[in-house]
Amino acid sequence: MNHFFKVQSLEQVALLAHQFAAVTIEKVPISDSFFRVLAKDIEATHDIPGFRRATMDGYAVNSSSTFGASESNPAWLEVIGSISMGESPSFSIQSGQAAKISTGGMLPDGADSVVMVEHTEVIGGESSSLTGVDREDKAQVSYIPTVEIYKSVAPLQNVIDKDEDFKKGEKILTSGTLLRPQEVGLAAALGICELPVYKIPKVGIISTGDEIVPIDKTPQLGKIRDINSYTLAGLIVEAGAIPVQYGIIKDNEEALLNACKKALDETDMVLISGGSSVGNRDFTVKVLSSLKDTEILVHGISISPGKPTILAKSGIKPIWGLPGHVVSAMVVFKIVVLPFLRQIQGFISCKPKDSSILIPAILTKNVASAQGRTDFVRVKLFRKIDGDSNNSNVGNSNSQYSTLKDKYEIFAEPILGKSGLIRTMVMADGLLEIGENVEGVERGDLVNIIPLRTLE
Amino acid sequence: MNHFFKVQSLEQVALLAHQFAAVTIEKVPISDSFFRVLAKDIEATHDIPGFRRATMDGYAVNSSSTFGASESNPAWLEVIGSISMGESPSFSIQSGQAAKISTGGMLPDGADSVVMVEHTEVIGGESSSLTGVDREDKAQVSYIPTVEIYKSVAPLQNVIDKDEDFKKGEKILTSGTLLRPQEVGLAAALGICELPVYKIPKVGIISTGDEIVPIDKTPQLGKIRDINSYTLAGLIVEAGAIPVQYGIIKDNEEALLNACKKALDETDMVLISGGSSVGNRDFTVKVLSSLKDTEILVHGISISPGKPTILAKSGIKPIWGLPGHVVSAMVVFKIVVLPFLRQIQGFISCKPKDSSILIPAILTKNVASAQGRTDFVRVKLFRKIDGDSNNSNVGNSNSQYSTLKDKYEIFAEPILGKSGLIRTMVMADGLLEIGENVEGVERGDLVNIIPLRTLE
Repeated sequence: MNHFFKVQSLEQVALLAHQFAAVTIEKVPISDSFFRVLAKDIEATHDIPGFRRATMDGYAVNSSSTFGASESNPAWLEVIGSISMGESPSFSIQSGQAAKISTGGMLPDGADSVVMVEHTEVIGGESSSLTGVDREDKAQVSYIPTVEIYKSVAPLQNVIDKDEDFKKGEKILTSGTLLRPQEVGLAAALGICELPVYKIPKVGIISTGDEIVPIDKTPQLGKIRDINSYTLAGLIVEAGAIPVQYGIIKDNEEALLNACKKALDETDMVLISGGSSVGNRDFTVKVLSSLKDTEILVHGISISPGKPTILAKSGIKPIWGLPGHVVSAMVVFKIVVLPFLRQIQGFISCKPKDSSILIPAILTKNVASAQGRTDFVRVKLFRKIDGDSNNSNVGNSNSQYSTLKDKYEIFAEPILGKSGLIRTMVMADGLLEIGENVEGVERGDLVNIIPLRTLE
Repeated sequence: MNHFFKVQSLEQVALLAHQFAAVTIEKVPISDSFFRVLAKDIEATHDIPGFRRATMDGYAVNSSSTFGASESNPAWLEVIGSISMGESPSFSIQSGQAAKISTGGMLPDGADSVVMVEHTEVIGGESSSLTGVDREDKAQVSYIPTVEIYKSVAPLQNVIDKDEDFKKGEKILTSGTLLRPQEVGLAAALGICELPVYKIPKVGIISTGDEIVPIDKTPQLGKIRDINSYTLAGLIVEAGAIPVQYGIIKDNEEALLNACKKALDETDMVLISGGSSVGNRDFTVKVLSSLKDTEILVHGISISPGKPTILAKSGIKPIWGLPGHVVSAMVVFKIVVLPFLRQIQGFISCKPKDSSILIPAILTKNVASAQGRTDFVRVKLFRKIDGDSNNSNVGNSNSQYSTLKDKYEIFAEPILGKSGLIRTMVMADGLLEIGENVEGVERGDLVNIIPLRTLE
């Protein structure tokens, strides 16, 4: 176990994600498919909505009958019927005719638009008492009401055409993308009751360290409770995967080896939450190297916090040795591990920068950074309070700040603190990435923040 | 049912959320508490971490023994022991002494700091072979190794003090806030195995309209499948609540009344997904008014899309009549209904503006807006590609754009389209709010976008 591994950059490590394959596919009812990852492209099997629909209450007309109509010079149209919701009209509209229609109703043949009810007035009869009539019925109606049209409509005005939402044959959903409510709604519109999705991956968590005790035990002096199993489980849940706990393994080679084998057998990715000491890392590498069909891919990443991260490929599955400090382990999960999980989940794009929106914010303090490594600084985000131009956190001595502060509303306050302090993550709303070729960022700089989920 | 209701502003409606109470409380194991809402304040029952811990591998020392140490003038300290992980050292450190320690190890009495191993060199012995020794043992050691210290440390350097993360008695978690992985980790650190949380609310969905058919049926011409039940269910899932479907109710007063009663009985909030026609709205208001102990609070909101929204208070529960257009219903859920759900979920702060981070972006096109109503425009977000200063979408004819474009990386492209087209929501990454006193926003303006969940 005397290999020396060169510390790799974040970019080098990210490229390794493509070595791992997505989980297998299953079919689920669409009501269970929310926020799952679609596993096949979906095409429209028919036009949506499938018929010409009104988007307003009013009168279905042929637009040419209304051209030139105005308040002072209204068009007069014969009201030949009223269209019931959900029914296909049994009559058609000729020039000079109209039919009463509600929002969502189907336009009769010959009608290409709807005049809003607000731009009409019925003369000589209650058109609402009319029901759908066909040509013959109409001949029997002794008195036909008339509607005055005060505003012309263009062809297709106030309607959705039969293939305006989606056309038959068009690709409507893309494999490897997230199924949001609207994507599932679209599947519903096509009558798709089940969707092919990637299975939900399971992620094993093995806690190691002679100093770690279960949370329901009172730790003796020198020991601490198992925090990282819970923070990691939460991050796995947040990412849409299933955490599986393998307990606390003492620093014993055989015990860790057996736990790794079991976890690799039962899950799609394994996290070893270990100590941050050199001895602990060597121990993890030794155990990983002794696993069958396993290759150490990464032993150290040029990021802070999180440098002592280990990645091995065991068969087709990634197995990670994470740093022991609670903040380091969380940052490494968000920044390094998550893209690999995204790959396993079946997402097309698996880089965190592509997969989440960064929030531009103005930095409130200078932050120094060492060259040659990528730093992730926890930040608290806050919004400018209207009229509070003298916010004590931000001052106005800096010209860039002065230029931006009135347009810009989000500020990022760096949280300085040791990566062993969970307090700093409890305070944080996001992470500021400082690139490896950057010496630091300054108060007033516009920076892009990686958001941590918050809701208050 | 001839009441005329004045259309209310978004702000007026938002104030009504406080009329509704949070659901009741339950205790759950912390491993099931992720992203639940905490229902009581939590105080630290003891200091965290509870003892002075090393944050580096190295030597535990009294910092005063290292003052003035440098490469050219090292301090020489006696190595009197080595501290095993998870153990309380049985010896203490005097001036001039050191003990080998790993990251996470407990400092002995008398030691206030750790010298990093990189700044030391052991002379005359393998200190690692030493185990914890007490004063008497030490007297029996014939040869005591020495460590050269090349850099001084300050008091508390490279350690976390016993109460540095949290102090006993300090409030560590606040009732009404979201339990993220880090908050749950903090509870774990304190040995809290169960947390009091608000129950997960159930939200009933009733679909109405004679034109609506279940998704597994082939709609006849003039009918469409039930899309809104699915998009609303997805939004409820996304918000952390449980959707309960009550099926499609034909436009029949008694049937809708019974469905409302059942849904109000079984859930914490009810959504009626109805048509957008005036007749349909009147019908919904009539049914709501005939429910026992029910008051219509809102009948129309000055927003677009979403104006024909109805809110009633039935007993202690909100019941909504949502507009029928798919986009309108989704926008109303995100903007109007969600704050009420947040209130029911137990969150301290329930306004969407407080509860989510808005993303500043540069608008790529002018968008007109009517005064007197708040508009929500769907937008697609995209990032500037490095070096792509001639992005065809944004041009550079506008001076504000020119000023901001190099600093700013996110652009918002308005998606124009009818609110009956689900396509526009499938394309959208967020919503642009245009206030009721604003006539429009211009290309190049810095705007704040309400994000819709995306992952690609």
